[in-house]
Amino acid sequence: LSDKEQSIHASWEDNAAAWVEAIHQGRIESRVQVTNAAVVSAVREVARARVLDIGCGEGWLCRAAAKVGLAAVGFDGSAALIAEAEKLGGGEYQLLSYDDFAADPFRAGGVFDTVICNYSLLGEDVLPMLRGAAAVLEPGGRLIVQTLHPLSAVGADDRYEDGWRVEDFSGMGSGFKTHMPWYFRTIGSWISQIRLSGLQLVECREPIISERPMPASLLLIAARPSDI
Amino acid sequence: LSDKEQSIHASWEDNAAAWVEAIHQGRIESRVQVTNAAVVSAVREVARARVLDIGCGEGWLCRAAAKVGLAAVGFDGSAALIAEAEKLGGGEYQLLSYDDFAADPFRAGGVFDTVICNYSLLGEDVLPMLRGAAAVLEPGGRLIVQTLHPLSAVGADDRYEDGWRVEDFSGMGSGFKTHMPWYFRTIGSWISQIRLSGLQLVECREPIISERPMPASLLLIAARPSDI
Repeated sequence: LSDKEQSIHASWEDNAAAWVEAIHQGRIESRVQVTNAAVVSAVREVARARVLDIGCGEGWLCRAAAKVGLAAVGFDGSAALIAEAEKLGGGEYQLLSYDDFAADPFRAGGVFDTVICNYSLLGEDVLPMLRGAAAVLEPGGRLIVQTLHPLSAVGADDRYEDGWRVEDFSGMGSGFKTHMPWYFRTIGSWISQIRLSGLQLVECREPIISERPMPASLLLIAARPSDI
Repeated sequence: LSDKEQSIHASWEDNAAAWVEAIHQGRIESRVQVTNAAVVSAVREVARARVLDIGCGEGWLCRAAAKVGLAAVGFDGSAALIAEAEKLGGGEYQLLSYDDFAADPFRAGGVFDTVICNYSLLGEDVLPMLRGAAAVLEPGGRLIVQTLHPLSAVGADDRYEDGWRVEDFSGMGSGFKTHMPWYFRTIGSWISQIRLSGLQLVECREPIISERPMPASLLLIAARPSDI
C-alpha cells in the first residue's frame, strides 16, 4: 500500500463513529437528495438475487438491497464500520481489506449477479479491485460504480486531471478526526480503468439534483464483453 | 428535419465563406491549440487505409489524413463548403445531406476502416448518423467522434442537461451572418447514443490545453462489439 492508501484506510478507522453518525443523520446532502436513490435504483434495475457491496461501510446499501428482496453481502476494510454493520444487520458482513479481496476475490463470498462500488474506490490504483469485481461476476452480471462526478469535484483552482485531493469532511457533522486523501479521476480515466479490468461500459448515468446545475455523481454500469 | 436542424443546415450555407476563413486563419483557438491535433492523432492511431470524414466542411481533416498516407473521403451537406474542399483537394469529396447518408450510408463511398465525426454531429437526433457510420465500418474498424466537452460548454447559467444552445461564432472572425442552434449533450447521453447505434465505446479522451483547467473536447472511440 502507498502512504496515501494507508492514510485512506487509517482515516476510516479514525472517522468511523463520525461517519456512522453522518450517514444516520443524513448529513451528506448529495447522498440524501440524489445519489443514494441513484445507486439503489440502479441496483433494483440490474440485480437478480445476490449482490456484493465493496466498501460497504456501516451497511446502509446492503440493508436497502435486502429491503427489495436481494441477498446482500458487504465487506469493508474498517473493523469499526463492519462492527456497526453487523449491529444493524440486513446483510452478511465481512472485515476484508481491499488487498485481500484483490488477491482472492472469491473469499468475499463466491459469485454475484451484481457488484457495487458506491463511493468506495478512493485510491489511485483501482484496477486490482475492478479486476476482482469482474472475477466474481456471474454470467450476465453487472458492475455498478458510483463516484464523485468530475464536474462537481473540479474547483476554481483545480485542473481536470487525475491526481490526489483531500477530503476534510466539512459539512458532514462533527467528530471527523482525520482528513482523507482521495484520488480524483477524470471520466476518461474511469472508462479506461473499467476497460483495463476486462469489463465493458454499458451505461454512464449522471444523477443531478434538481435545483443544481451540475451532476452530483457519476454512475457507471459495466459488464463482461460477452454479456452485452 | 426539425426547424432547428434546418437552421443548422442553413447556417452552414450562410456562413461558409466566414468558416473557411476562420479555419484557414486558425481563428478557433481550441482547434489550433489542441483539438485538431487530437483528432489527427486518433486517426493516425486507428486508421489503416481509408477513412470517411462525416461533415468534412472545407476538408482540412481529409487533407491531414492524406498527408499521412490515408485515402480520405469526405461529405458535407453544404454545397459551398464542398466546393471549397474540391478546390483545395486532398480527398474525394461529395455533397451529401445527413438525411441522404442516413437513408443509404453506402452511397458515401462503400466501407471504411475509420469513420470520423469531428464537431459534425450538431443536431438533436444523432442516432441515424451514428447508425450509418456503424453500417459502413469494415471489420475491426473504428468510429471517432470529437465534440465539445460538456465541461467546457457549461456556463454559469447552464444546467448540465441535454438541450439546444446557440453558437454565435463570436471570436471566430467576421463575416458570420447567421447564428447556429446546436444540441448540447451530456457525456452520459453521448455514451448512450453510441450504444444505441450498436457500437461499443472503446475509449474516451479529454484533450486539454496545457494552460487551461478544463478539457477542450470530448473524443470518443467506438467499435463493433465483436471487434473489441
